[in-house]
Amino acid sequence: MKHLLTITELHNEEILEILHEAQQFSEGKAWTPATDKFVANLFFEPSTRTKFSFEVAEKKLGLHVLNFESQSSSVQKGETLYDTVKTLEAIGANAVVIRHPQDHYFDELVDGISIPIINGGDGCGHHPTQSLLDLLTMQQEFVIFQGLNVVIVGDIRHSRVARSNADVLKRLGANVYFSGPEQWMDDAMVNGNYVPMDEAVKIADVMMMLRIQHERHAFKMISSKEEYHELYGLTVSREAMMKKNSIIMHPAPINRDVEIASSLVECDRSRIFKQMTNGVAVRQAVLKRALQHKGEVVYIG
Amino acid sequence: MKHLLTITELHNEEILEILHEAQQFSEGKAWTPATDKFVANLFFEPSTRTKFSFEVAEKKLGLHVLNFESQSSSVQKGETLYDTVKTLEAIGANAVVIRHPQDHYFDELVDGISIPIINGGDGCGHHPTQSLLDLLTMQQEFVIFQGLNVVIVGDIRHSRVARSNADVLKRLGANVYFSGPEQWMDDAMVNGNYVPMDEAVKIADVMMMLRIQHERHAFKMISSKEEYHELYGLTVSREAMMKKNSIIMHPAPINRDVEIASSLVECDRSRIFKQMTNGVAVRQAVLKRALQHKGEVVYIG
Amino acid sequence: MKHLLTITELHNEEILEILHEAQQFSEGKAWTPATDKFVANLFFEPSTRTKFSFEVAEKKLGLHVLNFESQSSSVQKGETLYDTVKTLEAIGANAVVIRHPQDHYFDELVDGISIPIINGGDGCGHHPTQSLLDLLTMQQEFVIFQGLNVVIVGDIRHSRVARSNADVLKRLGANVYFSGPEQWMDDAMVNGNYVPMDEAVKIADVMMMLRIQHERHAFKMISSKEEYHELYGLTVSREAMMKKNSIIMHPAPINRDVEIASSLVECDRSRIFKQMTNGVAVRQAVLKRALQHKGEVVYIG
Repeated sequence: MKHLLTITELHNEEILEILHEAQQFSEGKAWTPATDKFVANLFFEPSTRTKFSFEVAEKKLGLHVLNFESQSSSVQKGETLYDTVKTLEAIGANAVVIRHPQDHYFDELVDGISIPIINGGDGCGHHPTQSLLDLLTMQQEFVIFQGLNVVIVGDIRHSRVARSNADVLKRLGANVYFSGPEQWMDDAMVNGNYVPMDEAVKIADVMMMLRIQHERHAFKMISSKEEYHELYGLTVSREAMMKKNSIIMHPAPINRDVEIASSLVECDRSRIFKQMTNGVAVRQAVLKRALQHKGEVVYIG
Repeated sequence: MKHLLTITELHNEEILEILHEAQQFSEGKAWTPATDKFVANLFFEPSTRTKFSFEVAEKKLGLHVLNFESQSSSVQKGETLYDTVKTLEAIGANAVVIRHPQDHYFDELVDGISIPIINGGDGCGHHPTQSLLDLLTMQQEFVIFQGLNVVIVGDIRHSRVARSNADVLKRLGANVYFSGPEQWMDDAMVNGNYVPMDEAVKIADVMMMLRIQHERHAFKMISSKEEYHELYGLTVSREAMMKKNSIIMHPAPINRDVEIASSLVECDRSRIFKQMTNGVAVRQAVLKRALQHKGEVVYIG
Repeated sequence: MKHLLTITELHNEEILEILHEAQQFSEGKAWTPATDKFVANLFFEPSTRTKFSFEVAEKKLGLHVLNFESQSSSVQKGETLYDTVKTLEAIGANAVVIRHPQDHYFDELVDGISIPIINGGDGCGHHPTQSLLDLLTMQQEFVIFQGLNVVIVGDIRHSRVARSNADVLKRLGANVYFSGPEQWMDDAMVNGNYVPMDEAVKIADVMMMLRIQHERHAFKMISSKEEYHELYGLTVSREAMMKKNSIIMHPAPINRDVEIASSLVECDRSRIFKQMTNGVAVRQAVLKRALQHKGEVVYIG
């Protein structure tokens, strides 16, 4: 039984193993557990990509899916997260996928819960399967991370995901740079260097755009969407300055014409929808890792 | 790959083909695609019949079902319909069923989306699977549409579904009449003739009652439910005047004792619940049409 | 076809039969109906345990599951419960599980609906599968009910579940006692005797704690959570006075440190999570009873 709580806790070898498995799934590999398994998806925040990506991954693995909606649950009667998860365990869940607005919500779970917990995002903290699908997308393109120039653009200060991604990319050998409004930079920059957008596009192999989380009020910090786009966005003219084989990534949902020009969302360099497709394969690999027992017969189709 | 957006776009032959296939499904025919398929149901408006009818149809076809709820999705973060559907496509959906309050929502989708879109209702515009299940119900009863007297009763002005149904029935050879409050009639009447309710019940082979959409404020236009029922409803005494083999249809949900006397909802002439049963068979046929590839092996059970 | 509406309507032999079947399911027995079946779960009130317990039971039986959410249904357009259930029947549901805030909601259904109705809880009225899982948990522990001392603690006055449980336990031969605030006792006590908590813990084989339903405003009747716990709760010091093999039960969700000390929730005597596990087996047995036709081939795995 293996949790997946943060990308930080994974060794390089574990990461590369998961990516290898995910790549096989993305090429059509099939695996199903030897016995019937149930997975419960607990999403306490709105989500389209992550939720359905897990659900498709689960169904491709032949798992029974329990979709937990907090608004129609006993959470409404004040039940704690711990008691909710313990209940799902008692009822027969073999693993849980959780997205929750509270940072490190899993700290109160790991002692008492005896089924694997897969973190689908905690607050503005961690989102390990997003990190893994980002890595898979880069690996498919460039094979090795060593020497890769990755520019992360946006609100670094409030995105610990960006910061843990930066850490992981560094230890896999990539050169990490940051760009965007300077007031959004901070000590994360010890892991890289700040470059203005007009330079960033020239050196980047990967332009990794962050989402402006206007539901977290980030827009208050910028004067207007148009001005943000002009100063820090991936505009059509900046895209024209990018290197021949460099790519554009974005976790979505996209604020069109803010972080990125709408016309670039599906351009040749964009891997935005490819990232989503890779998300399914990564989650298949992560679920297999969580559910597979040593010595269990594995079917490869 | 074939969308189903409006009934208007279907030729008579295509309609009859779908009805033929649906009839076979209603008699117990089985078909499943040769490989695993995912269908996403995106309902942006409340629905019981249409939503579950599609879900049952999908499960009978052995499809994996993704139930998208707008309130727990990234639509809450401002994601566009296009980006939502594109996401589901990237994640692995092989078709989408969409109900959306905006008329012709699909116009912004058809260019960029490369999986079949099945319209489960757009605004007060189109609802092609409802039209098809209405046709199937009449065909089962009367075999041919030629010469059939169909009276459509209710708010014709605000129901383009009623109007596209009228168009289709006319081109299949039926005689279409309209009844109900005269202020709700309009240019749709060029396709038929207005008849008062007391005459309508005498000539009709099919009394096709529309729902009064009080959630769209139609009730503002009528003095009281009781008065509406008395003047334009299918009362017990009017039902007694109907021809021997004529039938009653209603898309439901029913406003009991408004459009129709409560005691008539399950009377011998009523095909109201039969319509719902037929809805599953029609949706199986429409989904098969959307997902079936030329040359694909078809299993008939 | 067999409804399950109240525990009261079941004879002792029927109860023991369901418990026997449930026990077999809990030991890994497998059963699936000979043909594809659909079950619709209609939950008009928040629920985690009951909802997912039914869903897991259904999926273990190989049934297709339709999860009906009232807030995204035509109930929003004023559709009656009868018409909603009749619709699900027409669409192909072979059974319905319903939780509804209205006492005896099923009275308006039983005449017109021709598929089995399984009551997942009505108002503060009945909750027969909860009663059955409570009985299964006691039976597993003590084999027979004859002579068993069961103390039911809490708001007996507002819990008809507690009262129908008391009835059933009496007719199965158990000695039933009540405890808790005296203003919450009432004529249910004709079926048992009131004992203060400090005595209750000494005589009980089973301490059957009720939930304080603060969402039903029961907390208004008590001065504070701390005081309630001190006076009527299962405190750590009271637990120490319990007999060697006696057990603690609670239907959950738990108000930790009110009805029961938080540290006792997973103590050796606690069967709280075991009850949830048993709930799945009981619901498998109840669903099998509802769906199984005489003469149908039964697979035992």
